[in-house]
Amino acid sequence: MPRPVSEIFPVWDTLAPDERAYLTQSAVYRTVPKGRILQQGKECVGLFLIESGQLRGFLLSAEGKEVTLFRLLDGDICLFSSSCVVRELQFDVTIESEKETNLWMIPFSAYDRLMKSSLAVANYTTKLMATRFSEVMWVMEQIVFKSIDARLAAFLLEESALEESDGLSITHEKIARHMGTAREVVTRMLKYFSSEGLVRLSRGGIAIVDRKGLENLAKQ
Amino acid sequence: MPRPVSEIFPVWDTLAPDERAYLTQSAVYRTVPKGRILQQGKECVGLFLIESGQLRGFLLSAEGKEVTLFRLLDGDICLFSSSCVVRELQFDVTIESEKETNLWMIPFSAYDRLMKSSLAVANYTTKLMATRFSEVMWVMEQIVFKSIDARLAAFLLEESALEESDGLSITHEKIARHMGTAREVVTRMLKYFSSEGLVRLSRGGIAIVDRKGLENLAKQ
Repeated sequence: MPRPVSEIFPVWDTLAPDERAYLTQSAVYRTVPKGRILQQGKECVGLFLIESGQLRGFLLSAEGKEVTLFRLLDGDICLFSSSCVVRELQFDVTIESEKETNLWMIPFSAYDRLMKSSLAVANYTTKLMATRFSEVMWVMEQIVFKSIDARLAAFLLEESALEESDGLSITHEKIARHMGTAREVVTRMLKYFSSEGLVRLSRGGIAIVDRKGLENLAKQ
Repeated sequence: MPRPVSEIFPVWDTLAPDERAYLTQSAVYRTVPKGRILQQGKECVGLFLIESGQLRGFLLSAEGKEVTLFRLLDGDICLFSSSCVVRELQFDVTIESEKETNLWMIPFSAYDRLMKSSLAVANYTTKLMATRFSEVMWVMEQIVFKSIDARLAAFLLEESALEESDGLSITHEKIARHMGTAREVVTRMLKYFSSEGLVRLSRGGIAIVDRKGLENLAKQ
């Protein structure tokens, strides 16, 4: 049983009765399997209101290089699938499901109408964008200012938090794609981490051994 | 004679009479000399509405490394000096005047009040943030996906457009700070550009010789 839009939509309480009715009528519930691309380029499929699951937003270069920008979890809203709602959003973020994800799809025309009638929705949209902007700036600061060892340590800790486990089954290739670097760089750094007793490496897996050590490294 | 707020504020026409009066009363006109830091960290000095001049927004690391994120020119509004208006903007942008700049300073409490009463101001703020977000993403794509020669070519062309001149009086050190790279990297690449006939180097200056060539390089 899907949770209704009224329970997940953040400023539901502030909406007028006709706005509520309109939103409820236009939202479509969807279950997206793991590993699906939900949004690429400037498509305008609508906003995703996530009931449960995990989406990843990333930059994708013409050569297939990637950098992970943000994760969207339960209760989050994805704005980037609607560059037609905010036309000034002139960049391409690719959105994929990292886990099976249940979501409400709000058509862009419906959200656009809400933004134009409801001050609460308009201000909520500003906050939403500011949140995503801040996350992306964090990634940028990491890329520009941090050394690769600090970034890798931060990445392992974040993955561990998302998976709620000390054991990560992720390939070096995949880590490299998240970080926008080369596989060789990741492999070399993981070997170093292993020799320092921070992680234990196995075929297709990485186990966090010294969490405190990784945290110190990530702060550098 | 400063141009009044009513002539520069983007959604002035949509404001109610009391909102207009309030905005006019609270805005303060200031002339900022070249080379001044207007905003650093999470200070909350208010929004800048630029009448004329040029501001630069950049990231600054603890070690003093910089990356230029955006420029603000005549008619632009700087949101980042008001992380207290949009509390979700959780990152530090430093703002400096690259030229003498005339601006209206709108106190954050005044802007906050407008955002809460005017749907047009709320939606305008979303657009403004989306524009800045897109500019920053462009920089990020450059840093992550582009080679240093393409980035340097793009930087020289942008500077030339801002200065409206083929001759740039800028040091290699300063270019390196804009790009978040080392001076040696810039010097080496400029020498290469010079040997390819793209630019002509002199003491303290760079002249663009082959604009078309730089444009092709920047596109790569």
